[in-house]
Amino acid sequence: MLARLKDLVIGPALPTKMESQRQLNIFRGLPAFSPDALASIAYANQEIYLGLVVAGSAGLAYAWPIGLGITGLLVMVALSYFQTIHGYPMGGGSYTVARSNLGELPGLLAAAALLVDYLLNAAVSLTAGVEAIASAFPQLWPYRIAMALGLLLVLTLVNLRGLQEAGAFMAVPVYLFLGAYLPMLAYGLIRLFLEGPTPLATVAPAPVQPVTLFLILHTFSTGSTALTGVEAISNGVPAFKSPQVRNAGRTLIIMATLMAILFAGSIGLTQSLGVVARPEETILSALARRLFDDNFLYFLIQFVTLGILTVAANTSFAGFPRLVAILARDGYLPRQLSSLGDRLAFTNGIILLSGFTAALILVFAGDTHALIPLFAIGAFLAFTLSQAGMVIHWWKEAGKNWILKSFINGMGALATLTTLIVVITSKFLHGAWITVLLIPIIVATFLKISRHYKAVRRELSLRGLPPSLRPLGALRVVIPISGVHRGMVGAVNFAKTISRDITGVYVELEPGAGSKAQEEWDSLWPDIPFVIVPSPYRSIVAPLLKYLDDTDTEHNDGQLATVVLPEFVPGKWWEAILHNQTAWMLKTALLYHRREYGKERVVIDVPFHLRL
Amino acid sequence: MLARLKDLVIGPALPTKMESQRQLNIFRGLPAFSPDALASIAYANQEIYLGLVVAGSAGLAYAWPIGLGITGLLVMVALSYFQTIHGYPMGGGSYTVARSNLGELPGLLAAAALLVDYLLNAAVSLTAGVEAIASAFPQLWPYRIAMALGLLLVLTLVNLRGLQEAGAFMAVPVYLFLGAYLPMLAYGLIRLFLEGPTPLATVAPAPVQPVTLFLILHTFSTGSTALTGVEAISNGVPAFKSPQVRNAGRTLIIMATLMAILFAGSIGLTQSLGVVARPEETILSALARRLFDDNFLYFLIQFVTLGILTVAANTSFAGFPRLVAILARDGYLPRQLSSLGDRLAFTNGIILLSGFTAALILVFAGDTHALIPLFAIGAFLAFTLSQAGMVIHWWKEAGKNWILKSFINGMGALATLTTLIVVITSKFLHGAWITVLLIPIIVATFLKISRHYKAVRRELSLRGLPPSLRPLGALRVVIPISGVHRGMVGAVNFAKTISRDITGVYVELEPGAGSKAQEEWDSLWPDIPFVIVPSPYRSIVAPLLKYLDDTDTEHNDGQLATVVLPEFVPGKWWEAILHNQTAWMLKTALLYHRREYGKERVVIDVPFHLRL
Repeated sequence: MLARLKDLVIGPALPTKMESQRQLNIFRGLPAFSPDALASIAYANQEIYLGLVVAGSAGLAYAWPIGLGITGLLVMVALSYFQTIHGYPMGGGSYTVARSNLGELPGLLAAAALLVDYLLNAAVSLTAGVEAIASAFPQLWPYRIAMALGLLLVLTLVNLRGLQEAGAFMAVPVYLFLGAYLPMLAYGLIRLFLEGPTPLATVAPAPVQPVTLFLILHTFSTGSTALTGVEAISNGVPAFKSPQVRNAGRTLIIMATLMAILFAGSIGLTQSLGVVARPEETILSALARRLFDDNFLYFLIQFVTLGILTVAANTSFAGFPRLVAILARDGYLPRQLSSLGDRLAFTNGIILLSGFTAALILVFAGDTHALIPLFAIGAFLAFTLSQAGMVIHWWKEAGKNWILKSFINGMGALATLTTLIVVITSKFLHGAWITVLLIPIIVATFLKISRHYKAVRRELSLRGLPPSLRPLGALRVVIPISGVHRGMVGAVNFAKTISRDITGVYVELEPGAGSKAQEEWDSLWPDIPFVIVPSPYRSIVAPLLKYLDDTDTEHNDGQLATVVLPEFVPGKWWEAILHNQTAWMLKTALLYHRREYGKERVVIDVPFHLRL
Repeated sequence: MLARLKDLVIGPALPTKMESQRQLNIFRGLPAFSPDALASIAYANQEIYLGLVVAGSAGLAYAWPIGLGITGLLVMVALSYFQTIHGYPMGGGSYTVARSNLGELPGLLAAAALLVDYLLNAAVSLTAGVEAIASAFPQLWPYRIAMALGLLLVLTLVNLRGLQEAGAFMAVPVYLFLGAYLPMLAYGLIRLFLEGPTPLATVAPAPVQPVTLFLILHTFSTGSTALTGVEAISNGVPAFKSPQVRNAGRTLIIMATLMAILFAGSIGLTQSLGVVARPEETILSALARRLFDDNFLYFLIQFVTLGILTVAANTSFAGFPRLVAILARDGYLPRQLSSLGDRLAFTNGIILLSGFTAALILVFAGDTHALIPLFAIGAFLAFTLSQAGMVIHWWKEAGKNWILKSFINGMGALATLTTLIVVITSKFLHGAWITVLLIPIIVATFLKISRHYKAVRRELSLRGLPPSLRPLGALRVVIPISGVHRGMVGAVNFAKTISRDITGVYVELEPGAGSKAQEEWDSLWPDIPFVIVPSPYRSIVAPLLKYLDDTDTEHNDGQLATVVLPEFVPGKWWEAILHNQTAWMLKTALLYHRREYGKERVVIDVPFHLRL
């Protein structure tokens, strides 16, 4: 019994760990993949309310039809993804589906759209979650930015430490959310039945705008963010228990049904009970307050809303680094982001995500309403490309019922494309232009990186002229001298081991310091020449580079002098910033200072470990 | 004529460039050193208003006496610094004066206080400047954080590019400010004379707090930020034309007089004209609006306020990196911040300042009023230490009138110490505790760094046992192999040049990849052994370190194997992040992986420049 309880509380693993082949049943699969989708009703509802309230009660009357329209769209998209699950039982992310069916460019477009969407999902979920709590505790309202950033920090740290165990806790907020919201809606229905509807006209604020087609379309666009997250299950089919496809498909149907009930139910109740929000309050908070007044249940609703939104933000932490790793493996992002099993790769991805999300929260001052116009575009672009890809997939496969399957996905693609166009046109000036601009820039970056890696691969190829495989002649060695001390000894000994032609070079920043150092040097190494290079501009690197270039030209022996650099290694990591800055700058300069093709200057680091 | 105009517009150089011995007369010295001091009246006035308005008209009636008290304090502090100019004609920063007269710890305390104050000056000036503009354009009010950060970015970039010419533009905002504010005050006086005073009781909002001693002291503390910046001239005496001391002294007197007129004048007018600010407006904006309504002159006043506050923020960009460099030279901060003439040192200082300032603006949500309680502490601590140091200075010198001089500085020290205590006690819970906590932490860091450098110097000394100065025996060389390609050729050739005992090591991440690489390797270098190290956890660094340690133990020949690392150098700088991440991690790991004292592992970088 206790073990089962623990199992329920600790729950199944995260999609991050899908590689480890955990086997999810429907009960565990639902919380693993649905938080993003379920939580989006929180901000979608709010957006519909904010979009219509400016037109007073006449505007708010459209909430229900718009809600129904979006629910219809949800059904179509869910059906489409139900098919994707069957078409790609190994996991069909939009990038995979679009790339394998439509080609490289549509694939990258889908990938860029998804990356942007992961960022916005994290930012919007956090700000919306904070708004839920700040609705309950108005004194927190001015601190929304700080609270959202704090929550982001917690998520970042939890994910950096590894989510293996913590991720399992995702099940708790999801079932708490369902367990609080579904009864609330039922209770609301009963109240509605007993009390009868409240006409909006008696409570709505006075209209400041007329109801226009543009207003309706705009509200539909912002409300369609309710659909974000529907695609998650189709990415994660392999994580399910066998029969995987059937279990994943059922989970999707259950999730979509729950989304429809929660979304349409809360909008319907809000409208028929005549609920209107205070200035610094979300509409869901107003609904809960209307039903429960200010008692314990109201606060519970706000906390579970924050809970599911936090978990929804967390899905970006699973998805973003994973997509980045796949893109890096395919050569579209820096290779160090690629190694899927490597802790560091995910660390980089998490830090990237966290940094960009923080920037979004800051730039948009933690305001969900300001972020939303940037949002849905990525999701609907990815939806459209993925569904269009599925049409081609069924057509190519030409299996049983392929025409029906193509038709369903085709309708899905058409519906999401239409929504995409509505979203872009109606929200363009409100911020959608940022996303419209950003996605092509990201795609261009992918292509540029890919071209670079391909060019490097060609250049590294050993085909063509055979390179010279002989050792070099006698080495000329130069030791830059920072001072005559114990740290130099190892460097000079090593130089002596590999060469008979050694020169110590001292860059003199203050007149007179050179001859003092030379005296000490001569007492230890009388047989090694000591050269003083003056530096009137107090730079160390430039005079040294010039000295090296000049002597190379002088000797003209077909090689560049080798540089032996003594380097301190302090005992404690933080002390590293107290040392070696000059050595590091010098190394970077030597590495990037290119003289002629085929001749390279070798740099030898001789560490000196401080005993401290 | 044109040349003189250009001279006026381009003006004299900045204190940053003081080293270059520009010779400032009073007319040019004033704008070079006064912006910080003059601009501080903008936020000091605002703080006095905000501090008193909570007590309604009864509270606001105290504005004038508090203003007079602060003006009196200003006169004392100015007199004290007038003496510092005579005592330290080579420039007497608080750190210098406190250190040379009171000892190391008071000196570091003064330095820490100044560093904190530079940060706060930048943050407060920017947020106050943005508030001035947002008062004129209320639609900008919600974007204050973004605007302050944008302004900070501009200042950072301008300073990073070098202020040599741009700095000269400082004169323009300063004289514009004086040219706009002094006539405004004169006009206000005329209006007051014609219209007679407006009783505050008729306009002030209802009190929400009673007038208490605490309220008065608290307001006095926040208002005393008007004095920040008075010390600037005493730091920069050598920049003046000879007779330097006399010119600097006169400039200080003119500046203090202007400060007193502007500060007392604007407070007096505000009170006697019964000016009250709107919720999202500064009191200076309200005063200007009262005098000019919303016409052109009102907007001019707001713009010149922004102008002088921006220039005031910029003085931190001159002072902070300079103080950091002096502290680094004295061994209290990382040495790379020290080289005074080096561009990079200032770059680091500027980036440090900019980063911390941005953090302050963000954490305090761009709210001047929230930042102020942290502010004055640093300034008044530095004032007190510097004045106390001057008392000792005169006493030690025992020259003409030393008793009178000591007395004046002693009174200054006493007055600023009293203010410091009032500031700390009355603002402790409002944020002053942060500064009170921060300053000792900074001092402790100074001491820790200083101890570290001293210990290293002892360890590096060549006294005691003479180190072995002989070359090593035959070298063992290990080449980590990422793949068999053209980039490996230089590394292998170099290894062959210095050793006959070479091993290529391949860390195998995917089973089977190793034997494929070995084939290619053997066809090029059949005489060099190729070792495959399996890596079940997909890490490259750990298995390689283990291999090196194991073979070192095996050979037991008194040395550690030398590692030869091929390293790609791409043609464009941004491409660097696409390469070498593994090489870099490996180098860092090798450097910090300490085996036993006296044995060091040498790492040899062999670059391969990509032709791209």
